[in-house]
Amino acid sequence: MTRVSIVGVTGYTGIELLRLLSNHRSVKVSGLISKSSSGKKLADIYPQYKGKELGMLNEYNLDWIKENSDLVFTALPHGISQKIVVELLEAGLRVIDLSGDFRYRDSSIYEEWYGIEHVYPGYLKKAVYGLVEINREKIKGAELVSNPGCYPTASLLGLWPLVKEGLISTTSIIIDAKSGVSGAGRKVQEATQFIEVDENIKAYKIARHRHTSEIEEVLKIISPGNVGIVFTPHLIPIKRGILATIYADLLDDISQSKLEGIYKKYYPEDGFVQLVPQPETKYLVGSNYCHLGLNVDSRTGRVIIVSAIDNLVKGAAGQAIQNMNLLLGIPEKTGLDGAGIYP
Amino acid sequence: MTRVSIVGVTGYTGIELLRLLSNHRSVKVSGLISKSSSGKKLADIYPQYKGKELGMLNEYNLDWIKENSDLVFTALPHGISQKIVVELLEAGLRVIDLSGDFRYRDSSIYEEWYGIEHVYPGYLKKAVYGLVEINREKIKGAELVSNPGCYPTASLLGLWPLVKEGLISTTSIIIDAKSGVSGAGRKVQEATQFIEVDENIKAYKIARHRHTSEIEEVLKIISPGNVGIVFTPHLIPIKRGILATIYADLLDDISQSKLEGIYKKYYPEDGFVQLVPQPETKYLVGSNYCHLGLNVDSRTGRVIIVSAIDNLVKGAAGQAIQNMNLLLGIPEKTGLDGAGIYP
Amino acid sequence: MTRVSIVGVTGYTGIELLRLLSNHRSVKVSGLISKSSSGKKLADIYPQYKGKELGMLNEYNLDWIKENSDLVFTALPHGISQKIVVELLEAGLRVIDLSGDFRYRDSSIYEEWYGIEHVYPGYLKKAVYGLVEINREKIKGAELVSNPGCYPTASLLGLWPLVKEGLISTTSIIIDAKSGVSGAGRKVQEATQFIEVDENIKAYKIARHRHTSEIEEVLKIISPGNVGIVFTPHLIPIKRGILATIYADLLDDISQSKLEGIYKKYYPEDGFVQLVPQPETKYLVGSNYCHLGLNVDSRTGRVIIVSAIDNLVKGAAGQAIQNMNLLLGIPEKTGLDGAGIYP
Amino acid sequence: MTRVSIVGVTGYTGIELLRLLSNHRSVKVSGLISKSSSGKKLADIYPQYKGKELGMLNEYNLDWIKENSDLVFTALPHGISQKIVVELLEAGLRVIDLSGDFRYRDSSIYEEWYGIEHVYPGYLKKAVYGLVEINREKIKGAELVSNPGCYPTASLLGLWPLVKEGLISTTSIIIDAKSGVSGAGRKVQEATQFIEVDENIKAYKIARHRHTSEIEEVLKIISPGNVGIVFTPHLIPIKRGILATIYADLLDDISQSKLEGIYKKYYPEDGFVQLVPQPETKYLVGSNYCHLGLNVDSRTGRVIIVSAIDNLVKGAAGQAIQNMNLLLGIPEKTGLDGAGIYP
Repeated sequence: MTRVSIVGVTGYTGIELLRLLSNHRSVKVSGLISKSSSGKKLADIYPQYKGKELGMLNEYNLDWIKENSDLVFTALPHGISQKIVVELLEAGLRVIDLSGDFRYRDSSIYEEWYGIEHVYPGYLKKAVYGLVEINREKIKGAELVSNPGCYPTASLLGLWPLVKEGLISTTSIIIDAKSGVSGAGRKVQEATQFIEVDENIKAYKIARHRHTSEIEEVLKIISPGNVGIVFTPHLIPIKRGILATIYADLLDDISQSKLEGIYKKYYPEDGFVQLVPQPETKYLVGSNYCHLGLNVDSRTGRVIIVSAIDNLVKGAAGQAIQNMNLLLGIPEKTGLDGAGIYP
Repeated sequence: MTRVSIVGVTGYTGIELLRLLSNHRSVKVSGLISKSSSGKKLADIYPQYKGKELGMLNEYNLDWIKENSDLVFTALPHGISQKIVVELLEAGLRVIDLSGDFRYRDSSIYEEWYGIEHVYPGYLKKAVYGLVEINREKIKGAELVSNPGCYPTASLLGLWPLVKEGLISTTSIIIDAKSGVSGAGRKVQEATQFIEVDENIKAYKIARHRHTSEIEEVLKIISPGNVGIVFTPHLIPIKRGILATIYADLLDDISQSKLEGIYKKYYPEDGFVQLVPQPETKYLVGSNYCHLGLNVDSRTGRVIIVSAIDNLVKGAAGQAIQNMNLLLGIPEKTGLDGAGIYP
Repeated sequence: MTRVSIVGVTGYTGIELLRLLSNHRSVKVSGLISKSSSGKKLADIYPQYKGKELGMLNEYNLDWIKENSDLVFTALPHGISQKIVVELLEAGLRVIDLSGDFRYRDSSIYEEWYGIEHVYPGYLKKAVYGLVEINREKIKGAELVSNPGCYPTASLLGLWPLVKEGLISTTSIIIDAKSGVSGAGRKVQEATQFIEVDENIKAYKIARHRHTSEIEEVLKIISPGNVGIVFTPHLIPIKRGILATIYADLLDDISQSKLEGIYKKYYPEDGFVQLVPQPETKYLVGSNYCHLGLNVDSRTGRVIIVSAIDNLVKGAAGQAIQNMNLLLGIPEKTGLDGAGIYP
Repeated sequence: MTRVSIVGVTGYTGIELLRLLSNHRSVKVSGLISKSSSGKKLADIYPQYKGKELGMLNEYNLDWIKENSDLVFTALPHGISQKIVVELLEAGLRVIDLSGDFRYRDSSIYEEWYGIEHVYPGYLKKAVYGLVEINREKIKGAELVSNPGCYPTASLLGLWPLVKEGLISTTSIIIDAKSGVSGAGRKVQEATQFIEVDENIKAYKIARHRHTSEIEEVLKIISPGNVGIVFTPHLIPIKRGILATIYADLLDDISQSKLEGIYKKYYPEDGFVQLVPQPETKYLVGSNYCHLGLNVDSRTGRVIIVSAIDNLVKGAAGQAIQNMNLLLGIPEKTGLDGAGIYP
């Protein structure tokens, strides 16, 4: 059994990692690290763990982690993650980082969009961007996997075949994304009070959300030409789920069936990315699958791709475990093959 | 007191007309017409009317309506509305029709997008499209006002100044719209069951929703050039509200403040269309206001307009009353000036 | 026009007072008092007021209020309200207080359940408990009306005829109440975050919620015998609405129709309390009505009363205005007769 | 591997059985039986199964089932289930029936509360009532397990120690239960439309819900004295979850800690029933656990027990699998030990 520790286990991503890893036959969660709740029992904070005692929550302690872990998930706020990730790497541990700190090749873009300094720019080239469907081979040998953001995961899985095949104008891309509230994290704030979110929809951070730059960064690697996207996130009254509706100008007309054929080359029949007629987030709650809906609008020369994921699973904890499976050399779907919980 | 009848009063639009008209000081609702529930008391279906008896629901009867009404609202399904509207007009009544039947100048476009025949194409030129902010003067003398669709209302209020001033490419327009469930009407169907809608989002009728053609039809009148829009509706788990996020390519760069200045020329400070930093549907529940958020994205040369309304008020019943006020020559905001109900 | 000020206008109750008073033909809201937001425009906090400028929010200032108001609503937290209410009264103003500070005849009960000292116990006997249906005549001449709590309003309207007529054992009463989230007020806290409330139900403050004592206090006035109730509040994922399910042992068997006859004596046909077969909170959103469902369970010798209100209207702001109407000697339903907003 | 078939797999209970059994290491789901959808692929109805083809949905065929199954779950409407269960039993199969058809020892009570005839009353004595915590030993050897109703599961787990120990008056029991919408099943109906359920709460079938009789039937077995309960179900806007708030008169005063001690004797520390300070349904989504909150109200001489479950898991599919585990002689928690999905 591989021993893994989760640093930041009481956040939404951390607790989802624990839920998924508890069903994973090849690993054992050895360390539950939480700054805010160290010294408490997990079940005192998360009563769903009552009756299956998992030990205490502990402060971050490098020596302890090194001795008791083979691999570490860091589920911390950006900025804070940097230092801990580098410490863990230097202690010889393999790390899967769920923050935004190692998602860029170029620290200046990070600094521009995140508004803080990157203290370890030298480590950026060590990090492999963990969007498995695109980067599978590179991930296998990585020391540090930088797990993608939730919006970029949904967006890039929808865009990848279009961009890679040169079917669209890469300056015409518009991504209109809608997210459930868990994407905002566990911090108590007015914007995520029930009364503020329920029976409401709003767009936020228009033309300035950080994930814009993360999506562009990845597309630039694939695309030979210029890339400039518009990305608009919205908050909707659901717990989990992202639906990204992606628009782009087709360079040439293409039939619906030909487009589907292309996507099927990129996404094998038994993989986590599936083509469906009409993606809906409700079928993906708790699931690591991504559902794509492909639509050619010949009338206007556009392609419209709808991409749905669970932001906490394929958009965070599930994808991190998918990355772990690759690092460990075990089948990629291990522990992640459950169907979404519906209704 | 002007006597008005509502044909189709038990649908969501009909009952909202009644709610709003009950607070209107210049009219009296004389006829409550319902096919499905004739012979019942209103309070037996809608208990919020218990304690203020409003008489019985009656079958549609032209002679009775003629004798007891000065003006009629028809809140019926498209296709069914046509015949009744024409009958009422021929009986000398002024009509405000909330269906899609008289929203087009050209019956062939209606027939293409609605998939049914238009039996009274001659009446299309009599109808005035009742988007008040655009068509105020024409509406004042109309016999028949065709009340706009909910999505077109939100979309066109957002687009009007941009198109009218020639600021954008009219073939670049993309409208990503999200609607609450009341927009689907009161019909019992699987797609609107709680379990299907709650904790879910989906896009539907991509590239083929009827309102696409309604929006294009109106823009063509304003715009000298070619018009071709992409319109994608989504269903979200809220009762009321539409948020339309509108994207277009700017022909020239423009500053945020200059753009706001232009919109303020079109939408006076005391009107129903207001500029706000970040539109949210929750502030507009039960309100006839439209909130617009303007965003220039100079980085990509795009303008992003966010438009929010209550689909049942500004997108249906409220706008119909706004039209009525114009027909009656009374102040446009009469009976419609209440703030949204929040929280 | 009577000039009224609202102290604490930015809370949920305050803003609902403003919404309702804006439609009231006999009063003018002269003062918008807010500690947290003084100096701002109302529309900057509540954009539903954009386009109908209502002036600035101001700090509490006794002299200003005295000069510009005939009557004051205090919508403040308990404890804080006491001092301000007494100041206003001593300045000769009539006050309707929406806090819990003046709901008891006996300060020791207040101090026991609220856990703070009552600094002005002498004023308790001046205060009239503003549950209009029970205390109508006393309210008319009051200087200070203490507006009832939301749970007590729903509970007492359901229980009043049963207790008054001596139909039930007053030590057998169990009230199982369910409330929407607005009842918790506007304070940002973890317990009212969307993720905590959505798709959830919990009971809270079992056997120790303050409203237990308020309900008992009122019932003791009506009932000759011993009174001891069990009151259990629950939080459910809705914005507005309370449903109280009330159980009691019948002293003698009674028929359903006889019971209805009794309730009709207490609640006139055109009043705010209406008998319906099955109360549902959705029909009462924004409405001052209370819906009661009466059920005799002969099999077990119990009566089960279901009582539904909008906690912010009949349970707070609406009832306060109903009290104001009585104080002003105008018809009780003035400004409150609108139907609930549905859907 | 034990081969199991699910008859009625496309209902909410059926699809939850499939989800849970897919993670069960000792069984293989061999037959997916659906009348309404036979001939279709499962993933065409439930896209969460896209990418892991499970074969076709088939019509019910006794011979096929007999040949391909060792055990059968019947997840059918009551009345319809009877005949199929008896056929399967007579074919020598072990059956776990999730309908109400075999939950009574006495067919006359079934007939009174369900309003239909029981055609196979002779089989009632063969059926073991599958509330594992109460009936564990009897279940182990059963041919037919009758899986409890959702409300009775939550209610009886809360009441069992109280009644068994003779702590309460068994004629004083009041159960105020609140359920999510999935409890109403997958049938399309007006009462479960989003607009009818969202932002609403109602009590329904007061004093006449079938589960009243099921709870009484079981309590009568435990209790020597008279049993008569009041049971009131409510519908709340959540997908999954039941919270039952249970009230009873204590025969003698008891301390909180003594009461907890008694419950701990009945519910072992590592079992599915756990004591928590404040049960909330959100922690139990997808989980087979039951959370109980115990409250002694010495002031009124009452005990108030709050019981929370996921109606589709511990209240249906999960409990059925727990029963299956007993029948198969494997550890009771096999395949059921996952934590609830939160957030």
